[in-house]
Amino acid sequence: MSSSKQQAPLPFIGNLLQGERNAITDVAGVTVGHRTLADGPVQTGVTVIRPHAGDPFRDKVPAAAVVLNGFGKSVGLLQVEELGVLETPIALTNTFSVGTVAAAQIRRCVADNPETGRTLPTVNPLVFECNDGFLNDIQRMAVSEADYLQALADAGADFEQGSVGAGRGMSSFQLKGGIGSASRRVSARNDGTSGGLGGSKNVGTGGLHTVGALVLANYGRQPQLLLAGHAVGERLAALQAERSLPAVNEAEKGSIIIVLATDAPLDARQLRRLALRAGAGLARTGSVFGHGSGDIVLAFSTAYTVPGSVDRPMPAVAMLHDGLLDGLFQAAADSTEQAIIHALWRATPVTGRDGNHRAALGDVLPASTLFSTHA
Amino acid sequence: MSSSKQQAPLPFIGNLLQGERNAITDVAGVTVGHRTLADGPVQTGVTVIRPHAGDPFRDKVPAAAVVLNGFGKSVGLLQVEELGVLETPIALTNTFSVGTVAAAQIRRCVADNPETGRTLPTVNPLVFECNDGFLNDIQRMAVSEADYLQALADAGADFEQGSVGAGRGMSSFQLKGGIGSASRRVSARNDGTSGGLGGSKNVGTGGLHTVGALVLANYGRQPQLLLAGHAVGERLAALQAERSLPAVNEAEKGSIIIVLATDAPLDARQLRRLALRAGAGLARTGSVFGHGSGDIVLAFSTAYTVPGSVDRPMPAVAMLHDGLLDGLFQAAADSTEQAIIHALWRATPVTGRDGNHRAALGDVLPASTLFSTHA
Amino acid sequence: MSSSKQQAPLPFIGNLLQGERNAITDVAGVTVGHRTLADGPVQTGVTVIRPHAGDPFRDKVPAAAVVLNGFGKSVGLLQVEELGVLETPIALTNTFSVGTVAAAQIRRCVADNPETGRTLPTVNPLVFECNDGFLNDIQRMAVSEADYLQALADAGADFEQGSVGAGRGMSSFQLKGGIGSASRRVSARNDGTSGGLGGSKNVGTGGLHTVGALVLANYGRQPQLLLAGHAVGERLAALQAERSLPAVNEAEKGSIIIVLATDAPLDARQLRRLALRAGAGLARTGSVFGHGSGDIVLAFSTAYTVPGSVDRPMPAVAMLHDGLLDGLFQAAADSTEQAIIHALWRATPVTGRDGNHRAALGDVLPASTLFSTHA
Amino acid sequence: MSSSKQQAPLPFIGNLLQGERNAITDVAGVTVGHRTLADGPVQTGVTVIRPHAGDPFRDKVPAAAVVLNGFGKSVGLLQVEELGVLETPIALTNTFSVGTVAAAQIRRCVADNPETGRTLPTVNPLVFECNDGFLNDIQRMAVSEADYLQALADAGADFEQGSVGAGRGMSSFQLKGGIGSASRRVSARNDGTSGGLGGSKNVGTGGLHTVGALVLANYGRQPQLLLAGHAVGERLAALQAERSLPAVNEAEKGSIIIVLATDAPLDARQLRRLALRAGAGLARTGSVFGHGSGDIVLAFSTAYTVPGSVDRPMPAVAMLHDGLLDGLFQAAADSTEQAIIHALWRATPVTGRDGNHRAALGDVLPASTLFSTHA
Repeated sequence: MSSSKQQAPLPFIGNLLQGERNAITDVAGVTVGHRTLADGPVQTGVTVIRPHAGDPFRDKVPAAAVVLNGFGKSVGLLQVEELGVLETPIALTNTFSVGTVAAAQIRRCVADNPETGRTLPTVNPLVFECNDGFLNDIQRMAVSEADYLQALADAGADFEQGSVGAGRGMSSFQLKGGIGSASRRVSARNDGTSGGLGGSKNVGTGGLHTVGALVLANYGRQPQLLLAGHAVGERLAALQAERSLPAVNEAEKGSIIIVLATDAPLDARQLRRLALRAGAGLARTGSVFGHGSGDIVLAFSTAYTVPGSVDRPMPAVAMLHDGLLDGLFQAAADSTEQAIIHALWRATPVTGRDGNHRAALGDVLPASTLFSTHA
Repeated sequence: MSSSKQQAPLPFIGNLLQGERNAITDVAGVTVGHRTLADGPVQTGVTVIRPHAGDPFRDKVPAAAVVLNGFGKSVGLLQVEELGVLETPIALTNTFSVGTVAAAQIRRCVADNPETGRTLPTVNPLVFECNDGFLNDIQRMAVSEADYLQALADAGADFEQGSVGAGRGMSSFQLKGGIGSASRRVSARNDGTSGGLGGSKNVGTGGLHTVGALVLANYGRQPQLLLAGHAVGERLAALQAERSLPAVNEAEKGSIIIVLATDAPLDARQLRRLALRAGAGLARTGSVFGHGSGDIVLAFSTAYTVPGSVDRPMPAVAMLHDGLLDGLFQAAADSTEQAIIHALWRATPVTGRDGNHRAALGDVLPASTLFSTHA
Repeated sequence: MSSSKQQAPLPFIGNLLQGERNAITDVAGVTVGHRTLADGPVQTGVTVIRPHAGDPFRDKVPAAAVVLNGFGKSVGLLQVEELGVLETPIALTNTFSVGTVAAAQIRRCVADNPETGRTLPTVNPLVFECNDGFLNDIQRMAVSEADYLQALADAGADFEQGSVGAGRGMSSFQLKGGIGSASRRVSARNDGTSGGLGGSKNVGTGGLHTVGALVLANYGRQPQLLLAGHAVGERLAALQAERSLPAVNEAEKGSIIIVLATDAPLDARQLRRLALRAGAGLARTGSVFGHGSGDIVLAFSTAYTVPGSVDRPMPAVAMLHDGLLDGLFQAAADSTEQAIIHALWRATPVTGRDGNHRAALGDVLPASTLFSTHA
Repeated sequence: MSSSKQQAPLPFIGNLLQGERNAITDVAGVTVGHRTLADGPVQTGVTVIRPHAGDPFRDKVPAAAVVLNGFGKSVGLLQVEELGVLETPIALTNTFSVGTVAAAQIRRCVADNPETGRTLPTVNPLVFECNDGFLNDIQRMAVSEADYLQALADAGADFEQGSVGAGRGMSSFQLKGGIGSASRRVSARNDGTSGGLGGSKNVGTGGLHTVGALVLANYGRQPQLLLAGHAVGERLAALQAERSLPAVNEAEKGSIIIVLATDAPLDARQLRRLALRAGAGLARTGSVFGHGSGDIVLAFSTAYTVPGSVDRPMPAVAMLHDGLLDGLFQAAADSTEQAIIHALWRATPVTGRDGNHRAALGDVLPASTLFSTHA
């Protein structure tokens, strides 16, 4: 990042508290790793989110997904919907590498659990994708199984954002997109006025739950772009007109993958409710869930795990009351919107296949111009 | 409306064309009628949307619904989802009057089709609701079957908005809510750049499709309120603080019903896709689809009808290609957001049950203040 | 019932244990009541299932539904799906009386909880229906709110089956249908061979869970009828031919409502899985979920309740492991098939509107003929 | 097959007409090909169903899926559900080979359409799977991309059933399972009595529609097995007892994939309705959609195609009236049940990994015993 960017004040979405890192890894135990491939026409990669340090095939993680627009090729959602758990790390990559990454997940599970597919059930790979074919020569299927393992090994609480991992070749609003993350903390106690909505900044840490979002942003038509309520797309068009350049107006051909983590005790039904609210944050950036955009949200909870074996005891967990979810819903929307801003803001420009180029938002519009009108 | 309001420039959402009335009745053949009950603690009513001038039991209308949040008691959606058609006018009312209005729809259908439920199938009432219990003594169940018939008889292309019909007792963002409507027109021709998105203002009328929205707005927590990207909720809180009054911060207990009409030839699957995009417009007003809010969208097409009788021929219709839907998606989001602004702006203040009162937005904040900072 | 019927050995479906009453009320706490209207052209009624002795608005019951075919007008499923609980007793009635019964549920809830719809949320009526218009003059809408209250007051662990309550006017396979019930008991312990399937008859009572089914049978085309694997429909056609009578071959215009209760600790996602398996039992009677048949299953658990108030603690329940559900799935299918046989077998003949008549199965075919070929 | 089997009369399910081949390829234009791998511990393969002779990426095929139980790893259903079309041939293989076969589909599409993923959208691979890990060393991931291409090249109207292609290593009811197929023909004209149900054997060919089913059968617990209403599972258990052998009673760890083709003009919503009815046929064989069984149905229509390009005209098709679907529903259930019988009956015994062996049904029970009691 250029120093000018670092000085620019990024808008803060909403009025909830952010977590320490303002990232999905503020949910304790969650780690993120990348493997970035950047070599001429190959501009792609893999990003892995580990929900906990153990083997999710043995200690499954409650999860649910919402498909806002199903023009997408992600795998693993059938079983997540049926059983309400995920059982591998979450992988993100380009559309044509889904099969390879899924195979890597299977082989890794077999290595760790040699009876997988024999006396044990088969494992359910969970791989999300966007099409990075503008910058990346997607037809090369450059991602290997080793790349997945490297991303997995790289996973930690601190991780890069922007044009890295699966985000390397992604575009958003005809600008450079990629990986972004953010978090929010909320009280889920009943304060008598707000159906459980907390967010007042003086609530002690003890009663707070964290919601973290990580996005792989590869969506959006430039004229639609809203940032923190500002019609940035219109400003960009005006800028083009000033320079006597044609307006940037391509069809939606991208996608966005949104992953939400929370430490609140929610079951799969509640996680599905939470996941939908990421769509509100997405919509506030100007998306109308375009026809060609695979817009998918996965939400998981770290509050408990479900044993893979029927011989181990099931957890006895008091879930959060649905009447106390509004704060978490707000956190899901706000952290998603914030994560998208981070993805755009932290992306560095990339030139790839056939000289195709995407500029970074911060290089096109000075931050002072972007966010000057709101406090 | 006060003259000051009429002079205030309302923000125009997006850059698509609006229809002649900027209302759902810009979709040819669609009419809307109200029956308003306003008498002390009774502040409620019925609104009816007729998709065409005929009997929808005989000429069924392609339709689909999306439930953004199912904390709601609307009836009729099971069959709409299975069969992809609606077969009565669409009725809106308060939560406890759904049964009465459904019975009125049944009786009306029996009167028009005496074999209903005998040699003919039973009819599927379609009644949506929000809880107006703050202003209206909902426990009285004041709406009668005659009220439904009066709303039906009142239906026309020109209709009132604001605190009328089913909107009479509704609240939104702790302000007066109610009925709002808007429309947008788009080209669904492929212009080579935008996946079918039109919206350029010089496209001839011949190639344009209309999307109209009608909302029954009864949702929202005041601190969340966004209008055309402006954080109006925060300004209202600041105003309260200036006056040394406590911030308005109630739990979400409302709902919003959104009805979309279009003259584009879409089948039920496509109408479901269209309906979801109303959620993007709703999110842009600050909603995160709160736990206690029944947020439901119904979309229908007037491009063709499906005969009730198997002995009549089915229509042979070329649907719009899915690759040309982006303009309609934008229109669904924009007309919904605009309709919500209209509902808030056109609502007149109401005092009802136990002296409960909701102010109109325009009386709380001058329009000049509301919308001054954006071009 | 005639004594000849009582002597006839009814086929026993499957090899699981049955409960003491072989009825849904074998699930402890569940009670069933009827109100039957039988007066000339009025042949209809209401049946109520109470999941527990308390007020479900205060102590909500985990529940989920599956819509096998949505040609139906039942109300309340939207909210059950969103929140995973039911909050009124379950009511069954005829199609055109849904609104009246829903209103009765609302009024009863208001009487018990005077702040319903004011400081408390509105209540979600849950009313299922089938069309009894062949025997009953459905256009009279003869069911009153008082009838619902009488059915509620009548609820007990012992209850009648056949042509009673909501089943009074129902037809099935062009024979007399109505109310039927059955139960099965299974072990949900892992026995090492069967993914948790128990069902061996020597398992102690301590480890057993009960699944009970109650059906409102109003579906089926006679040529399709299978009973315990026997092609009874074909035999009936042969009988008609012997008598030189035309085959009975009417279009499907009915429906079936299936309610499952269990004492196993299941969450809403698992209850949805359980509910689907009732469809297997239904299919084994010859149903192909006909176009005009509203085929709906609701499943609930009595193992715990969810407090209506956010101020009361949530239950900390260890759910059953999904890997131990196969026995319950078998029980859901078997008890449903058995309940349908009971509905047909226990139905008494009824003559209603315009002299329309439905014979009882046992009067048409002697039991010795029906079930002689299988052990 | 042994000659004794050929002489045994297989039961005919239902009373509809069968097509000429009694196979899915009775739907004109549909072809099926296999690639079988049978070498010691490798007992697996690929089966491909081509919906028409052209490239489905250019001429997309209306389709819909129903997931009866989502314990499965099939890919491609997200986009089928959103867009209502399939755009590759349908591939079936083992669980761990899904990624490889999906990659093969992508590469084939790129070869035929070089702009795939660039100026054209990415392609949606459609691969279904069952776990053949009992007979096949699934951890070897033995299926190659070349195997997919060979199966594709092999596709024809005449094809083998039983232990071939993807069915090579599959087990069903602890017997040898695999590929089975069947078809039924029905009138969809209104005959005044049956909601459009035809099936009388003297209806002229002109007005008939064909429904064909192909199953990959790898499901079922032996005690559950029903064949044409006969409790074959019980007889097998009795046989074991006679021989003083323990009952065969393993947990469900399999799956079944059911593909339905029809030449009736149905849209995606109607195809989803059709697909569900395959579940009725499946249930009649004793399945209760076991926890560990991925039970998935895909239905497609050959009556029209949807152009890949928005510049080509959309078809103007009169769909079948929903009131005329009952015959097709019956055909879907009956052809599925028949196809399962064919899969069991035509399977040859296989010995694979670690000497694991599955016997063929016909070798365990003589046909005369199996089907003797029904006409």
